[in-house]
Amino acid sequence: MFVTFEGCEGVGKSTQLKLLRDYLERTGQDAVYVREPGSTDISEQIRSIILDPKNRDMTPETEALLYAAARAQLVSSVIRPALDAGRTVICDRYIDSSVAYQGYARGLGREAVERVNAFAMRTAMPDVTVFIDLRPSAAFRSVSRNDRLEMEALAFHDKVYEGYLAQAAASAGRFVLVRPEKDRADTHRKIVAALRERGAIK
Amino acid sequence: MFVTFEGCEGVGKSTQLKLLRDYLERTGQDAVYVREPGSTDISEQIRSIILDPKNRDMTPETEALLYAAARAQLVSSVIRPALDAGRTVICDRYIDSSVAYQGYARGLGREAVERVNAFAMRTAMPDVTVFIDLRPSAAFRSVSRNDRLEMEALAFHDKVYEGYLAQAAASAGRFVLVRPEKDRADTHRKIVAALRERGAIK
Repeated sequence: MFVTFEGCEGVGKSTQLKLLRDYLERTGQDAVYVREPGSTDISEQIRSIILDPKNRDMTPETEALLYAAARAQLVSSVIRPALDAGRTVICDRYIDSSVAYQGYARGLGREAVERVNAFAMRTAMPDVTVFIDLRPSAAFRSVSRNDRLEMEALAFHDKVYEGYLAQAAASAGRFVLVRPEKDRADTHRKIVAALRERGAIK
Repeated sequence: MFVTFEGCEGVGKSTQLKLLRDYLERTGQDAVYVREPGSTDISEQIRSIILDPKNRDMTPETEALLYAAARAQLVSSVIRPALDAGRTVICDRYIDSSVAYQGYARGLGREAVERVNAFAMRTAMPDVTVFIDLRPSAAFRSVSRNDRLEMEALAFHDKVYEGYLAQAAASAGRFVLVRPEKDRADTHRKIVAALRERGAIK
């Protein structure tokens, strides 16, 4: 099973990924954990270019192609082999980030971004996508802005959120929308329940 | 006018580009000179990843997407603005390199590579492409192998050559095939004559 986590900046995605990993390790369940962009040596080199605040002149097309390049390397050297070996893969951000950020918020359009990414992913589409469903205006104050994408204005991140909602509507069978609770342990329990229900974990 | 130079490694492409530039400067003709991958700060960062001999595990898809990313940045920040200002642009390698190297020699297929690059180039297609038409087996001994692409085996470079021939056949109106002469000054004169005939230079 291939599980991806999606959401806007500052919604607690990393925390929930960590809690899920703790749970899986505690219950003896094997999984491969990766994050995008990155998780291979070449993808991390690409990540550095994408996120470097000095690269403020980067065009939306270049940004989309760099994410796709990092993804192509990750799919072929980690995700595809792990899935072929019957392992569970849990990935922090994937195709839906590209569609939401570059397709919707940068205005390249969903189809163009999906076409470039079909080339990058080949057949490695997620089975389940956990979307932490929180509008960024509600979360934005808590974000530390260190990289080029985090430094975008709130209006940009609101467009990202709208893009996610459109993706979730278009791929309803794959998406699990999780509204974060005040207590992160409650959010965690909702995620575990949803993933168990889908058969992605035990 | 947008002029590109193409050819396999070691066929004298750089020498001919230099001779053309000398000619244009001597005759007071303005042009913008760029090379691929590179020629913008971001594209040069991408170039370093592509050509680094340490990155030997790079997949063909990643390679194709990185070239397209470097191209998208170059088109949008240099080539498109120069063409819009009515200037001549002369580019060392462009879309046909991607089709020949990644499409044919790496086996990704011409259409897939063209699709990814349509996204990168938007409308900046060359008006004239000078192809230095020499099979690499005839030139291969003289190449110094310093980067990841140059270090590929002769069979790879022969496939690149076949890819170029297929491109030239498919886009015959745009391609000028120039067989290199023993004396590089003779080759230069053939290139100048062909470009003048096409109205690309005076």
